[in-house]
Amino acid sequence: MIKTEFASYIKSLQNEICSALEGLDGKEKFLEESWERDGGGGGLTRVIEKGNVFEKGGVNISEVHGELPDAIKNHFNVTEGWFWAGGISLVIHPVNPMVPTVHANFRYFELYEDEGMTQRTDAWFGGGADLTPYYLFDEDAVHFHQMLKKACDPHGDDLYPLFKQQCDEYFFNTHRGESRGIGGLFFDYLRGDENRSISDWNSFVTDAGNAFLDAYLPIVKKRVNEPYNPAQKYWQEIRRGRYVEFNLIHDRGTLFGLKTNGRIESILMSLPPKVRWDYDFKPKAGSREEQLINVLKDPKEWI
Amino acid sequence: MIKTEFASYIKSLQNEICSALEGLDGKEKFLEESWERDGGGGGLTRVIEKGNVFEKGGVNISEVHGELPDAIKNHFNVTEGWFWAGGISLVIHPVNPMVPTVHANFRYFELYEDEGMTQRTDAWFGGGADLTPYYLFDEDAVHFHQMLKKACDPHGDDLYPLFKQQCDEYFFNTHRGESRGIGGLFFDYLRGDENRSISDWNSFVTDAGNAFLDAYLPIVKKRVNEPYNPAQKYWQEIRRGRYVEFNLIHDRGTLFGLKTNGRIESILMSLPPKVRWDYDFKPKAGSREEQLINVLKDPKEWI
Repeated sequence: MIKTEFASYIKSLQNEICSALEGLDGKEKFLEESWERDGGGGGLTRVIEKGNVFEKGGVNISEVHGELPDAIKNHFNVTEGWFWAGGISLVIHPVNPMVPTVHANFRYFELYEDEGMTQRTDAWFGGGADLTPYYLFDEDAVHFHQMLKKACDPHGDDLYPLFKQQCDEYFFNTHRGESRGIGGLFFDYLRGDENRSISDWNSFVTDAGNAFLDAYLPIVKKRVNEPYNPAQKYWQEIRRGRYVEFNLIHDRGTLFGLKTNGRIESILMSLPPKVRWDYDFKPKAGSREEQLINVLKDPKEWI
Repeated sequence: MIKTEFASYIKSLQNEICSALEGLDGKEKFLEESWERDGGGGGLTRVIEKGNVFEKGGVNISEVHGELPDAIKNHFNVTEGWFWAGGISLVIHPVNPMVPTVHANFRYFELYEDEGMTQRTDAWFGGGADLTPYYLFDEDAVHFHQMLKKACDPHGDDLYPLFKQQCDEYFFNTHRGESRGIGGLFFDYLRGDENRSISDWNSFVTDAGNAFLDAYLPIVKKRVNEPYNPAQKYWQEIRRGRYVEFNLIHDRGTLFGLKTNGRIESILMSLPPKVRWDYDFKPKAGSREEQLINVLKDPKEWI
């Protein structure tokens, strides 16, 4: 069964990612907190804070099920229904502003018409991964996209271009007229059809999840010893403000979690540790900071 | 005409408030930025940053008019219409965590059925003032409420209890189950009726605006020299995160501004200068920090 398989996959992916990040950090470990959901299921939140390399990071899994919350019933326009949902969600905020922030999320959803959950009426995958640099290194952006493309291509040449574009469209701070970062993949409602069965999507999502460490870790290793000054750290904290704005104003996942009485601390672990808002902060003309903004205003093809 | 009168009132109130705050700060002055709105009107944003007393503060006025933006047409379910809107909005974030953050806003809105704006179809006042302490001093909360009540009472005994309750209801972080602060006044859609004409509401709102400095300044003066330690500053930065959450997730004014292409930097000047999000930060049992949370979870009658 896909759901059992996926539940076990996200568990092992969480372990693998946390081990790799801990290894790189060298100082702090992920703390674990398991929680249960009223109505069925629960999750395991793993958070690292005040590390050498990672200022704050969360890698969460959850597997929840039961009667559909009212907000979802309204969304799908049904009066009754039961669901199963499993997913892994991570956001990593590094100390060094030369190391980008990263986000990834992979999830599977099933709907049923009966409480016993034997009559499945719908099923889909969603997720993606995207990178948010504070200073732009073109080769890092190219590497990140290449690793994601490599995960997509065996499942069809159409996938990377489509999911890359959807990522640029989704992670866009419309009120600022700029992207959250340099993109990656974003997909949702991947249902089985004549081209790809739901099992095919399962193996695509598994490949995408497995690509995460290959996409991100080499960038961390390459940039973690880059020198930086207080003005560059300041810039990182200003830009983290834009990350908060996206997550609290625009991100459907965050707002959905808040509306459906999700576990607040697990949902908001995505928020950066130290953030600044100055009035009308503008980078100097011709600076590296301005270069970043120019790219965010006009998303690029990296491959 | 009320709108001319109100436009001139908010201008002088802005001057009065900025002068008083500058006098108290002693180091920094408010910088001014005037802006124009495509479609009619504009505003004057005044911001103070990195002062001795005030870490960041904005006192903005705007007077905008013209054809209704689509978002408002949809909201009021009309296909055409013209409007005039004037208001003053302020948020002050002090350096010292013993000094509370304060917000106030007073606004007047007119709707017309003709472009020449001679046929007025609706008019109302809105606004309020509320206090967000990081450490609770009961006498300060009582003083703040007393000054607001004093402004309300000449206009009817019903006003303070009603607007106090509306404030507790409005400035509530539902996803945290706690108030943003210790409340104050909140009112909206104050239209002329058999009890009070729109002119009566104009004089009420003017009195409320005039009460602001009396309500806030004595508290600043009393607390500005209280000693504080780094852990208390840390707590302030954590709590400022809740302020951001309220403004970006729940505040109708902010979301409305973002949807109607308002001037982003003027809208988001309300966000605090330095903010922290730690995973699941909990104050110690019996601490002053916990005392604050207990009051925020269960709004009090201060008078």
